[in-house]
Amino acid sequence: MAQTQSSQPCRAHLINIGDELLEGVRPNGHLVWLGEQLARRGIRLEQASIVRDELPAIADEIRQAWSRCDLVITTGGMGPTTDDLARDAVAQALGLPLDPDPEAERALRARFAKIGREVGPLDLRQCRLPRGAVSLPNPRGTSPALFLRSGERRLVMLPGPGLELRPVFEQQVVPLLRDDGSACDGEAYVQVRTFGIGAAPLESLIRPLLRPGMQLTFGTHSGVVDARISPGSSGACCDAMMEVARAVRDAVGDDFVCTGHSTLAQLTVERLGRLGRTLAVAESCTGGLLASNLTDIPGASRVLVGSLVAYTNDAKVGVLGVPQALIDQHGAVSAEVAAAMATAATERFGAHHGLAITGFAGPDGGTAADPVGTVYLGYASPSGVWSRRIVVAGDRAQVKVRAVNTALDWLRRKLSRYAVEDAIHGA
Amino acid sequence: MAQTQSSQPCRAHLINIGDELLEGVRPNGHLVWLGEQLARRGIRLEQASIVRDELPAIADEIRQAWSRCDLVITTGGMGPTTDDLARDAVAQALGLPLDPDPEAERALRARFAKIGREVGPLDLRQCRLPRGAVSLPNPRGTSPALFLRSGERRLVMLPGPGLELRPVFEQQVVPLLRDDGSACDGEAYVQVRTFGIGAAPLESLIRPLLRPGMQLTFGTHSGVVDARISPGSSGACCDAMMEVARAVRDAVGDDFVCTGHSTLAQLTVERLGRLGRTLAVAESCTGGLLASNLTDIPGASRVLVGSLVAYTNDAKVGVLGVPQALIDQHGAVSAEVAAAMATAATERFGAHHGLAITGFAGPDGGTAADPVGTVYLGYASPSGVWSRRIVVAGDRAQVKVRAVNTALDWLRRKLSRYAVEDAIHGA
Repeated sequence: MAQTQSSQPCRAHLINIGDELLEGVRPNGHLVWLGEQLARRGIRLEQASIVRDELPAIADEIRQAWSRCDLVITTGGMGPTTDDLARDAVAQALGLPLDPDPEAERALRARFAKIGREVGPLDLRQCRLPRGAVSLPNPRGTSPALFLRSGERRLVMLPGPGLELRPVFEQQVVPLLRDDGSACDGEAYVQVRTFGIGAAPLESLIRPLLRPGMQLTFGTHSGVVDARISPGSSGACCDAMMEVARAVRDAVGDDFVCTGHSTLAQLTVERLGRLGRTLAVAESCTGGLLASNLTDIPGASRVLVGSLVAYTNDAKVGVLGVPQALIDQHGAVSAEVAAAMATAATERFGAHHGLAITGFAGPDGGTAADPVGTVYLGYASPSGVWSRRIVVAGDRAQVKVRAVNTALDWLRRKLSRYAVEDAIHGA
Repeated sequence: MAQTQSSQPCRAHLINIGDELLEGVRPNGHLVWLGEQLARRGIRLEQASIVRDELPAIADEIRQAWSRCDLVITTGGMGPTTDDLARDAVAQALGLPLDPDPEAERALRARFAKIGREVGPLDLRQCRLPRGAVSLPNPRGTSPALFLRSGERRLVMLPGPGLELRPVFEQQVVPLLRDDGSACDGEAYVQVRTFGIGAAPLESLIRPLLRPGMQLTFGTHSGVVDARISPGSSGACCDAMMEVARAVRDAVGDDFVCTGHSTLAQLTVERLGRLGRTLAVAESCTGGLLASNLTDIPGASRVLVGSLVAYTNDAKVGVLGVPQALIDQHGAVSAEVAAAMATAATERFGAHHGLAITGFAGPDGGTAADPVGTVYLGYASPSGVWSRRIVVAGDRAQVKVRAVNTALDWLRRKLSRYAVEDAIHGA
């Protein structure tokens, strides 16, 4: 739901603390997650900084962010060890003493008592509070989050582990930001998710449907193109935004995936679940990624019966049941074999629908007619069997992701029609 | 190979430009990739900043980074559209005029002629060069990279798309940084990759083996614990570093995975390839992720015959061939069924080795004895069949990743022994 907001959105600066984020050890998941959270709530993330576990670097960044933005959020550096310096850095940057926090200490002692662990002097480092801040209980960890309000400025300090950070942010920080008007009540924009249309043609479709002042931004990821429409200066209310979204949906037609943030895999699991139908999958070049994406969704076990990664021709013939003659005549990467894989998957697993992928993911392989990046999709349903050739760009990993997304999107389109046929034929 | 470096490493600041990086649309892959590249070359990434496509924000960040670090790297904002502002921002921040770059224009015109596209006025925005900079050809895109040396400072500007950025950085930027001594000749540290030992016990094993002055840092990701040993102030040469690494390997024993950056999936594919053995996989709760990780590795088709995701009991029995009686008596999540899945996989696919995973990934499921996070692994080889119970923490996605890593690590250990048995028995 779109929500009218004052013309000046709250401006935020995110500071991620941790040496390992700067040394290529693992991705910075907080930026993606918090970036979306803030955008959805109408808070504009102006900048993000990743700094080392060093007092001057953290303090310096907090000081600068504090002077430029309405909301400063830190992640990490909140634990008990001596290189957890976020509290000390805030104290130094904002000139605030660190007071003991009896409530946090009580919670920590209770937690440790429960698991029979003794509280050491370092552990109590987590129970210090910059003066004026409130601590927000962290049910999944020992270190509470912190919230500080000073004039027009807000500081939010979150623990580093994602499993602790996310619930604290959603359940405790967001309500506080709503209360003081930093975050909007509902969703700050309507997101229209599409697949199969480029950002430029999508923009030409959407622009004429917007009211004067409405804002439009785009995000693209592996074939998915998202259009985010926000009220901007139009002052449009929630209902008006939804009306625009409906007009966009009608204009976009079959390429419209959903309103909101659902993934193609989520929509597939939901749609099949509603239809009471099951799916079986057969993969070659995507090597299990299609099945893995579907099984990321809780409840997938109700619709996905199974999947077969038939990486060799022997496996395609012997285990899956693709006729050897089809492979001999058309090659393993062909429309014929894709269709046979989809049919065989439904038969082997006893599923209503079958989805199959075979192609050349690279770096080697491919033919003159079907170079690396060529992928054939197969789909089988009670109404028939289809196959389709696509060409996707990128390296091996990207070919896998794009082939899987295109297959899921194709299934989505087929299921929309299937639902209609179902209604007509009472199948 | 470790390489002696001057005691003051080159200090870098990375600036990623792009609105979409701040709105939770997709992860910032450049930070991970460049973070590792810089660390391996002895360049210390002090800070990373992600800024919007806005001239004052980019220029401000470049100005600050330039005043504090030896090396400033920007990514993105190099394309032809009017919101590609990286060149203008550098010009403003460093007070340099933008000159036309005839070489870049020639390359652009040749590229466009080849694909029959006309060069528009906006396209030529990509052929402007801050005075004093050199342009570095970008074979995969229209926008060249830039390199600027000014006194002790270096500026590197890279195009946004990963497929363009990576080869330009590796093939053109790194040699320039080596020439002027910013990057070391070989590898700046020896990385010892381990699995199954925590960072704290690993540190107690390694510390006594270091020479005075050597530096030790740790990175952990989904069960993998990396120890990076660098010469620090010890002045240790390449051979001395490798000697330490060998001593660490001997001290760590079975938990030692490799020296360097190979993933568990890479090592599995390489090891099986060297042994001339094939693998079949059967997955339940990991839903295809194990097979997908293996098929990410080019050449996987030579060792992975196939994989079966048997998500339902019917699929386990009917397609894979697990005896129904085993599931009835012990449950689908049990040591017995894991072993049967591994054996059945070798038989169905005709492979030498079988690896199986069954467990409760959550959020629902699990029993009092085997709560969510409980996973059974099965392994079958010509020498026998084994199973193993593990408990992994985290949400559904994390349970999947950690179960897969633990399975691959277990296979690694088994294959080490298998290689020894092979040598003894001449199997």
